[in-house]
Amino acid sequence: MKEPIVQTAEDGTKDLDRKILELFRAKQGGTVSGEELSSALAVSRTAVWKHIKSLKELGYQIKAVPSQGYRLLASPDLLIPAEITAGLGTERIGARRLICFRETESTNDVAFKLAEEGAPEGTVVVAESQRRGKGRLGRHWESPPGVNLYCSIILRPPILPQKASQLTFLSAVAVARAVAATTSLQPAIKWPNDVLVEGRKVAGLLNEMSAETEKVNFVVLGVGININMEQTQFPADLRHPASSLAIEAGGTISRIGVTRAFLKALDALYDDYLAHGYEPVRTEWLDRSNMVGRKVRVSFHDSEVSGEVMGIDDDGALLLKLPNGRSERVLAGDVTLL
Amino acid sequence: MKEPIVQTAEDGTKDLDRKILELFRAKQGGTVSGEELSSALAVSRTAVWKHIKSLKELGYQIKAVPSQGYRLLASPDLLIPAEITAGLGTERIGARRLICFRETESTNDVAFKLAEEGAPEGTVVVAESQRRGKGRLGRHWESPPGVNLYCSIILRPPILPQKASQLTFLSAVAVARAVAATTSLQPAIKWPNDVLVEGRKVAGLLNEMSAETEKVNFVVLGVGININMEQTQFPADLRHPASSLAIEAGGTISRIGVTRAFLKALDALYDDYLAHGYEPVRTEWLDRSNMVGRKVRVSFHDSEVSGEVMGIDDDGALLLKLPNGRSERVLAGDVTLL
Repeated sequence: MKEPIVQTAEDGTKDLDRKILELFRAKQGGTVSGEELSSALAVSRTAVWKHIKSLKELGYQIKAVPSQGYRLLASPDLLIPAEITAGLGTERIGARRLICFRETESTNDVAFKLAEEGAPEGTVVVAESQRRGKGRLGRHWESPPGVNLYCSIILRPPILPQKASQLTFLSAVAVARAVAATTSLQPAIKWPNDVLVEGRKVAGLLNEMSAETEKVNFVVLGVGININMEQTQFPADLRHPASSLAIEAGGTISRIGVTRAFLKALDALYDDYLAHGYEPVRTEWLDRSNMVGRKVRVSFHDSEVSGEVMGIDDDGALLLKLPNGRSERVLAGDVTLL
Repeated sequence: MKEPIVQTAEDGTKDLDRKILELFRAKQGGTVSGEELSSALAVSRTAVWKHIKSLKELGYQIKAVPSQGYRLLASPDLLIPAEITAGLGTERIGARRLICFRETESTNDVAFKLAEEGAPEGTVVVAESQRRGKGRLGRHWESPPGVNLYCSIILRPPILPQKASQLTFLSAVAVARAVAATTSLQPAIKWPNDVLVEGRKVAGLLNEMSAETEKVNFVVLGVGININMEQTQFPADLRHPASSLAIEAGGTISRIGVTRAFLKALDALYDDYLAHGYEPVRTEWLDRSNMVGRKVRVSFHDSEVSGEVMGIDDDGALLLKLPNGRSERVLAGDVTLL
């Protein structure tokens, strides 16, 4: 996996890896003969052998049993197309192009460039690690290898740039759904774009767009989910307490499982958004946020404002009720729950 | 001028062309000796001769008068840094980098790429013609050579993406100021981003941005002004009547003059915007628009709405009073004055 692994809907080669793994898993640890593989995949036994070899190089423990066939003993929890697309069944997200890197500068930057070059809606970029992971407002996103998910998705929604923050909420809801679906944890969304467990941040979103005044050209949804990161891997100077799903759940979580659940949730939510607009997203965001009715302080650059959270509006603003009874729309800032 | 001419604040070479032209013009058609040029510019007489030669290649008619020196007989109205920066005196716009192309795909695309690579605020990209000139909403912008201005400017305003359309209004005001300053015409701004003379469109704006949810990375202001375009050069299928400054004024207009006036106006307005915010822009926009109090119809995709124009708001919306007395905020669309 020195080169990125690119999966396209038209690309049968990478589908073969997925099918081989599916055949192994259907046998639940049993042996699959070379003949079986070759006929199920409609390729030569030499081709089967080559794919088995490349899977072994990726870290799959596959044992050749003389005159019987192959047996899958263990799988690495590796974010590769063959795993992510297995049973994915999405309409748009990851359905046409999925690109997995061992390492990259920033998945958002890669996705932004691909979008400029015309990559289709739903294109997904995943990396095992980022050299220059980006957080919001120019901040750094800690991106050690092999433990988390760093992922960017290209969307081309027919919306106005003023409404693009609706997709930030949509992606936060998708992360919360994925965490709820794959762990026993209770995720809570914090405005504008964090996902917390027990008050500690386990995921962040950095959404970027290219737009003209009356039209979004494309949006890149960037997602970082701390999945199996250990306490010692967090930098010391974080603004807010951070954690990972594994720390909170007390055990290793399948990265492939979380990734697949996230892409599925995003696909379903985006489909709903295109068909029915923002309202279902807002409703679920409010349900899943820990904020409505809470007293908060929001700081942005040199200013700050405190008040009670009333909700979020169409343009992504946090609606606050100030102590003097007035209401205020806050469009950006760092929230502290009081 | 096969290669783009790039002027940077640090680049003395291109400044020499400007200084030579300034010396010629100070003499008002008189002769300037090689010695005078060489000592004023602090370069050798060979260097002077090379610069004279390159100016001649650009179309400047410079006559060598034996044992006297050089005389500037005629100048082409060419959009090159030496002309545009002469007496420009701006703080930001064109002050650090100015790039002039004989031809390019689209000045907006060039500027967008430069901005991604970190080009400084105020970088200006000008082209004599565009192969793929871009209008708003994916439309084509007719860009024949040598007659108009096609220009894109990079800004890095510390604003939220929801407020970016304020810069569309700002640039429309700058165009209107430039037209008023360099012609006897009465320009009128039409929401969101056209400049009209006597109801006919003479300029259009296409502003693009790269942004994250809470922060604009950069804005590219794209401006097309029809200056000396002739009636026969307009495509037949335009939505609205179009014209050029020359057609309206009944005579050729200096492209260099309009360009310089536009960059100056933009610089002053942007300076004011950074210091005092949106209100001065809105006030001047309303003054210079032909819209307030007018009855209009706005169409966008399949929908349309008609009403009386009340003004524009902070987010760039056109405020309409509907026949039923309600008010409506319109964020995008094509306006027809009724």
